[in-house]
Amino acid sequence: MGKPRIVVLGAGYGGIMTAVKLEKMLSEHDATLTLVNKNDYHYQTTWLHENAAGTLHHDRTRIPVKEVINLQKTEFILDTVVSIKPDEKKVKLADSELQYDILVIGLGFETAVCGVTGLEEHAFTIGSINNARLIKEHLQYNFAKYQHEEEQKPERLNIVVGGGGFTGIEFLGELANRIPELCEEYDINKTMIRIVNIEKTPTILPGFDQQLAEYAMSSLESRGVEFITEATLKECKSDRVVYEKDGKLVEIPTYTTVWAAGVRANSLIEKAGLDHSQGKVKVRQDMRAPDYDDVFVIGDCAMIEDKNGKPYPPTAQIAVQESETVARNVKALIDGSEFQSFKPHLLGTVASLGQTDAIGNVLNNRQLVGWKAVLLKKIIDNRYLFKLGGFNLLMRKGKFNIFH
Amino acid sequence: MGKPRIVVLGAGYGGIMTAVKLEKMLSEHDATLTLVNKNDYHYQTTWLHENAAGTLHHDRTRIPVKEVINLQKTEFILDTVVSIKPDEKKVKLADSELQYDILVIGLGFETAVCGVTGLEEHAFTIGSINNARLIKEHLQYNFAKYQHEEEQKPERLNIVVGGGGFTGIEFLGELANRIPELCEEYDINKTMIRIVNIEKTPTILPGFDQQLAEYAMSSLESRGVEFITEATLKECKSDRVVYEKDGKLVEIPTYTTVWAAGVRANSLIEKAGLDHSQGKVKVRQDMRAPDYDDVFVIGDCAMIEDKNGKPYPPTAQIAVQESETVARNVKALIDGSEFQSFKPHLLGTVASLGQTDAIGNVLNNRQLVGWKAVLLKKIIDNRYLFKLGGFNLLMRKGKFNIFH
Repeated sequence: MGKPRIVVLGAGYGGIMTAVKLEKMLSEHDATLTLVNKNDYHYQTTWLHENAAGTLHHDRTRIPVKEVINLQKTEFILDTVVSIKPDEKKVKLADSELQYDILVIGLGFETAVCGVTGLEEHAFTIGSINNARLIKEHLQYNFAKYQHEEEQKPERLNIVVGGGGFTGIEFLGELANRIPELCEEYDINKTMIRIVNIEKTPTILPGFDQQLAEYAMSSLESRGVEFITEATLKECKSDRVVYEKDGKLVEIPTYTTVWAAGVRANSLIEKAGLDHSQGKVKVRQDMRAPDYDDVFVIGDCAMIEDKNGKPYPPTAQIAVQESETVARNVKALIDGSEFQSFKPHLLGTVASLGQTDAIGNVLNNRQLVGWKAVLLKKIIDNRYLFKLGGFNLLMRKGKFNIFH
Repeated sequence: MGKPRIVVLGAGYGGIMTAVKLEKMLSEHDATLTLVNKNDYHYQTTWLHENAAGTLHHDRTRIPVKEVINLQKTEFILDTVVSIKPDEKKVKLADSELQYDILVIGLGFETAVCGVTGLEEHAFTIGSINNARLIKEHLQYNFAKYQHEEEQKPERLNIVVGGGGFTGIEFLGELANRIPELCEEYDINKTMIRIVNIEKTPTILPGFDQQLAEYAMSSLESRGVEFITEATLKECKSDRVVYEKDGKLVEIPTYTTVWAAGVRANSLIEKAGLDHSQGKVKVRQDMRAPDYDDVFVIGDCAMIEDKNGKPYPPTAQIAVQESETVARNVKALIDGSEFQSFKPHLLGTVASLGQTDAIGNVLNNRQLVGWKAVLLKKIIDNRYLFKLGGFNLLMRKGKFNIFH
């Protein structure tokens, strides 16, 4: 097929790691490599909650594509994907159209509003650098404004987080650290602030042992977070949220609702006509779409099951590991070598609870809490940076302040 | 009259310097001294434009009262003055009432809306720490929001400053420095920003020589500031301003209008029934109100004329120099010593044009521009800190980075 053209869509965890690996595995004589992304930077989705709370600058979280991709070897196109046409082997971008021989789809997730009225208009989400930065500024603006108004509005100081999953809890942890700083900065009495988490199920952090979830709750409660469990967010308005608990509707006045509950795969997947389940492509063991031998799907757009038929979670860890399989199998398509099956190495999961606390479920179901978990989280973060951009990137963006 | 009670209203330049001097001049056996202020800090009004632009943190500008006043010697009351009743020798505060024997009024200025419709509702002013902090946050919020919206609104990036006087120009100078930083922080192209100054007269900075005013204009223009002179602000709405020039009405879409034109003395002066001219008490040469031997007025609430009948400008320099006269004459009232007349030592005026440029009219009408004027401005600022709180305060809050 001549010199095949490989097109990678998306520079999230899966996409950019695939591109980085392909650059190393293939020579320019083997294939041409194109990476498409709507920003000229990659960002670490798992750090965004820190940018949103204002505990970490967003420039620490994003990495210019050109710092990890060799633009001499790889063509980088800064554009938005509009549609994917696998039958024609074409991808439509906002400004152009691409023809591919081999496609890797790593377009990540979108927010799912889960039937909550007004969510799209009035709630924030933590899904991108722009969103995270806006949440930070929104909080600061409201704290400044509170001080400025004659009639002081609790809406400005109440913060509601919808969903007690991974993102919600990690964001609450950062917020709990950040609030005392914000109060000092804007001359506000700490007791005026309300941080409320609304969670549908009886407990937070599904996927963690009950014991660890309880540790997380009491760690956050001790820093002022209120949990309202077995409650459903019903409506989000410009100045309040309404939730239902025990059959009753309750209102909380707030200008700041952060929706950290529902995510779904990028809706372009569905529109592409790829066989999907709840928006995700149930890929084969070699990470290819079931109907197309030349289309790989990775990360949050892909669903792959373990030997018990349970899907692996949509985490950065899995996406990064999948990139190894995808890159090898792209190469196999080109040089006829053998295809590999995806085999994850589950290293466990750590959820941070702010700068000074964390919980972790690690290998052999060992549990970690407190500073050991904080340290492990930083090791995981730094390990990724090293994989992505080597020692230089690690030194520039790594987290080394292990005592804080 | 037993042990007289001295009450100083306001901890601005005039008020706090009077209190600091009285603490040194009088012993506790001579009199009791009470200072009333609505914040527990003094702030340097002349630095607020830096806080508003975001080039200096507001904590650098404010100084806790307790750091310069000895609370063992002086009673400090954190409260707002509601009314002054000179006939009854009483001052009504929000939470209590004070009886005085000698009163010093240093309640500063208020914004005058000068007949511009909607100004109070929709424009910002730079008159306090809260206001300045809000302007900073408002700018950041709008820059963040601009990036976030599908339909990008120029309202978020246009900044209109009403008035080309001292405050307006100094604020524009800081803004011109700050905008490139903000653009980098929020990923905005610098060419999208519009900073507009609207000034009624044909030139800016009345009180400075034409040559210096022109220097200031071209310094600011070279950094992107647009001047619209001989134009009158007519109306301020939530999303635009309307000005009139050459008989035509012109609109500028903006969420950020900063009103830096009209100020007037605190309106409590008028309400107190003190003899006033345009809200200011035309004090005697010893700084006492014409009708009351026990009431001193200082700073922006007082008007005092030079030998040609021209009022001294309402500057920090004059207020600080007046405090010397006021403190001595308060003592004279108590111990029967001789009254002094106010004699200013006019050291000239420096207007900053951002961190790296300034203009100055100094002694003997010498003119300074550029780094020499920047340096002089810092010397003036540091000199005040030294006077107010000695070496310690100077070291903590002073401006020493003379090369930037």
